Amino acid sequence: MKRLCLVLCTATGLLAALPASAQFQKPEDAIKYRKAAFTVMANHFGRIGAMANGKAPFDAKAAAENAALVAELASLPGTAFGPGTDKGETRAKPEIWTESDKFKAGMSKMVEETARLNAAARTGDLAQLKTAFGAAAQTCKSCHDNFRKE
Amino acid sequence: MKRLCLVLCTATGLLAALPASAQFQKPEDAIKYRKAAFTVMANHFGRIGAMANGKAPFDAKAAAENAALVAELASLPGTAFGPGTDKGETRAKPEIWTESDKFKAGMSKMVEETARLNAAARTGDLAQLKTAFGAAAQTCKSCHDNFRKE
Repeated sequence: MKRLCLVLCTATGLLAALPASAQFQKPEDAIKYRKAAFTVMANHFGRIGAMANGKAPFDAKAAAENAALVAELASLPGTAFGPGTDKGETRAKPEIWTESDKFKAGMSKMVEETARLNAAARTGDLAQLKTAFGAAAQTCKSCHDNFRKE
Repeated sequence: MKRLCLVLCTATGLLAALPASAQFQKPEDAIKYRKAAFTVMANHFGRIGAMANGKAPFDAKAAAENAALVAELASLPGTAFGPGTDKGETRAKPEIWTESDKFKAGMSKMVEETARLNAAARTGDLAQLKTAFGAAAQTCKSCHDNFRKE
C-alpha cells in the first residue's frame, strides 16, 4: 500500500509538473525563454518607471499599454524553472529550488503587484501609478536579491 | 520655402520615429529586446503549431491563450530595428534597412496573420486553427528567408 501510494504520489507530482515543463524540449530552452520573458517585461516596466520617476513625460495611454503587457508577461517566466534548469547560461541561485515555496511566493507576489499596476495605470492617475509601480518594483528587487546571482 | 519644408519634413520624420527608438538607451538594448520578444513569441507559436500539426493533443483553451499572447507580442519586435541596430549580436541582414519598405510590409503581414490566428483560435475549431497557423507561419518563414542570416 505504501509503495502504491509512493508510485501514485510520484506520478501525480509528475503530471502536475507536466504542463509547464512539457512546453520546453530541453532545459536550455526553458532558460532562454524565461530570460527573454524577463527582458521584454523589464523593458516595458522600465518605460512605466521612467514616467513614475519623472524621467519621461507622463503619457496615460502609453502607461496603460505598457502595464497591460507587463501584467501579461509576469506570469510567463515562473513556468520555466523546472528540473534541470539550474545549470547553464543562468544567474539563477540554487535557492530557487532549495527554497522553492519562498521563490514561488515571490513570483506570485510579482504577478499580483503587476496586476495592481495594470489596474492603477488604467485609472490614468499618475499618483496611483507611482504607488503601484513602487510596490511592483519591490517584488522585482526582492527576488533579485534572494534568487539571482550578481 | 523648399528648405523650410525639408526641415519640417525631416523633423516630422524624426518625431515619428522617436516613440520606438527612444524606448532603448543603446542599440544593443534594442537588439536584446527584439530577440527576446521573438524568443517568447516563437515558443508560444510553437505550442500552437504542435497542436495544429498533431504533435500535441488539441486543447482549445490553451490554443486560445497562446494565440492571444502571440498576437500581442507580434507588434513588439518591429519597434526595435532603429538606426545602429544592424551591428552586434544580431543575425539581421542589411536588407532590413536597405529594403526597409519590404521589411516593414513583412512585419505588418505577421501582425495581421497573428491577429487572424488569434481570432481562429477563439472559435475553438481545430480546422480553422490549422489554416490560420499555416498562414502565420508563412510570414515567419518569409522574413527569415529574406532578412535573417543563417
